[in-house]
Amino acid sequence: MAPTLALVGATGAVGTVMIDIINNRESVPWGEIRLIASPRSAGKKITVRGEERTVVALAPEAFDGVDIAMFDVPDEVSAEWAPVAVARGAVAVDNSGAFRMDDEVPLVVPEVNPGKVADRPKGIIANPNCTTLSMMAALGALHREFQLTELVIASYQAASGAGQEGIDQLYGELDAVAGKGLGARAGDVRAAVEAAGLSLADSPFAGTPLALNVVPSAGSYKGDGWFSEELKVRNESRKILGIPDLKVSATCVRVPVVTTHSLAVHATFAREVTVESAHKVFEAQQSIVLIDEPERGRFPTPADVVGGDPTYVGRVRQALDFPNTLDFFVCGDNLRKGAALNTYEVAENLATEF
Amino acid sequence: MAPTLALVGATGAVGTVMIDIINNRESVPWGEIRLIASPRSAGKKITVRGEERTVVALAPEAFDGVDIAMFDVPDEVSAEWAPVAVARGAVAVDNSGAFRMDDEVPLVVPEVNPGKVADRPKGIIANPNCTTLSMMAALGALHREFQLTELVIASYQAASGAGQEGIDQLYGELDAVAGKGLGARAGDVRAAVEAAGLSLADSPFAGTPLALNVVPSAGSYKGDGWFSEELKVRNESRKILGIPDLKVSATCVRVPVVTTHSLAVHATFAREVTVESAHKVFEAQQSIVLIDEPERGRFPTPADVVGGDPTYVGRVRQALDFPNTLDFFVCGDNLRKGAALNTYEVAENLATEF
Repeated sequence: MAPTLALVGATGAVGTVMIDIINNRESVPWGEIRLIASPRSAGKKITVRGEERTVVALAPEAFDGVDIAMFDVPDEVSAEWAPVAVARGAVAVDNSGAFRMDDEVPLVVPEVNPGKVADRPKGIIANPNCTTLSMMAALGALHREFQLTELVIASYQAASGAGQEGIDQLYGELDAVAGKGLGARAGDVRAAVEAAGLSLADSPFAGTPLALNVVPSAGSYKGDGWFSEELKVRNESRKILGIPDLKVSATCVRVPVVTTHSLAVHATFAREVTVESAHKVFEAQQSIVLIDEPERGRFPTPADVVGGDPTYVGRVRQALDFPNTLDFFVCGDNLRKGAALNTYEVAENLATEF
Repeated sequence: MAPTLALVGATGAVGTVMIDIINNRESVPWGEIRLIASPRSAGKKITVRGEERTVVALAPEAFDGVDIAMFDVPDEVSAEWAPVAVARGAVAVDNSGAFRMDDEVPLVVPEVNPGKVADRPKGIIANPNCTTLSMMAALGALHREFQLTELVIASYQAASGAGQEGIDQLYGELDAVAGKGLGARAGDVRAAVEAAGLSLADSPFAGTPLALNVVPSAGSYKGDGWFSEELKVRNESRKILGIPDLKVSATCVRVPVVTTHSLAVHATFAREVTVESAHKVFEAQQSIVLIDEPERGRFPTPADVVGGDPTYVGRVRQALDFPNTLDFFVCGDNLRKGAALNTYEVAENLATEF
């Protein structure tokens, strides 16, 4: 019998993209598709593959008969409810940070470590955070060929990484500053945002304006100068790639982009690597689109690739002073491959078990 | 007699900031201050230190009697006219890229290598490019203490690095996209910018929208995957710091910020370095402001520091996997310390020679 799929968090920013992905898939292996959300959103009607479905409230019995439950909800909701889904017989595929570094939970990117889904003693499979995911297809492909040893990363992260709240905040701030010729004096952007009635204290961007600005803070503060997003990039990259001693330094910065994370990657390998050999690796990977004609002004940018499923790679060059090292630029839609798409791909691969 | 100062390019984006700097200096060592610009701008009246002055046209005789001539003009104008000023008896302090890598032209940052001004066989002293300058005070101070060996840089560069044209383009694009809820589908931002009648082909940002976007391209394409700005960061850092074999990799990216460049810096040293010892070095350097309380959401951002003279440093942390390595975030106003201020400081130091 075709398996039953549940989507928990069906009405959130990532959940909405997930429904778009399901609707646009050529075919799906599911019997029933059940939409689950907070009691507040229960009763809402959403059309999935031509059929109107009613969102049901998150409750233990919502998982009865579910084979695979995808979770696109905050960490604490996943931490509580993924085990409930498992207890009711489902496999949980979780997009939150609740289980990613749990030794008994595989962290899976289908292009990189698809086999890991089988080893799930807790019945839970985790999806990496969106910043790590944005570069993982590219790094996984290079690692197979050249053996990655070191990574220095700087991110250009979109507002939607902070959910619908982040999107709304950025749009509100942009409206507050547009047409005002601001940005030449300290405090002007901040004052304009506050004058428009927007709260910076409640903003998901660390109390700092994001319009006409960049904010070197993502996630929560974890001590010794590091924010959670920077540590996730390190720890999740090591786990997904299976390189426990991979050297990683990341600086995570929000930029006034709505959707699509970009990363400047400085990657060192054990084996010799050239631009030509890296291009071949990228071209051979189905989920990567190489846009690398800098002499013609062609490279990936968020505005040109957002909404797409692939990882977009460009600006590939051999580091001039570092042996076996490439510098390159990656863009990936943080709501698609960075979140919903990867989760869905994991669920889709699991469907063959049923 | 008090020396005569000339400002060539008095009506441009950097020239305008230069006049602001001169006007706000507590005292100035100059007798006459002469404003020079293209014949198109000649005759314009500008108030300098309370006195209305008339802009004169760039011509050989404009340099008669000038002791120090500051050039804030495009490379080709400097290349032609700085030697003319020198032939007429002036010392030229040039903010363009025309002479920076000339072995007979010192490249000077007063906090780092002030003594180099004396060694100027061509009578020309060069000012570094704004991206390099934005981090040079911080790196120079750390290098003196810990001996810099490697640098991996990712930049978040403001539109005004491309002059008034860059500022106008960004403002125009922001007005075109504001209030439209764009940024979730590829091509939407591009279409909105073009629908507003703005040319992307003529934009200084590589034919790519900058609003709601980031653009991994700065300067002109130089081959092997590198853009000029990235090579300048490498070559100018080596020359200013006096480390000919410094290992450098830079990725230069434009962001939708009007003014103030930011940089994510990953710096490796020959000697042991801690956050505490780096903080001490930054606090001891008069031109650096340390804003580093991440636990309270305090770090430098362009919107909060633009218009200021110092180099702002924050997010200082010890790299977890790289020995003797710091990661940190720097912001500097690219039109002030990044251009006009540094040039002026060099000229001011030279004034004591007269």
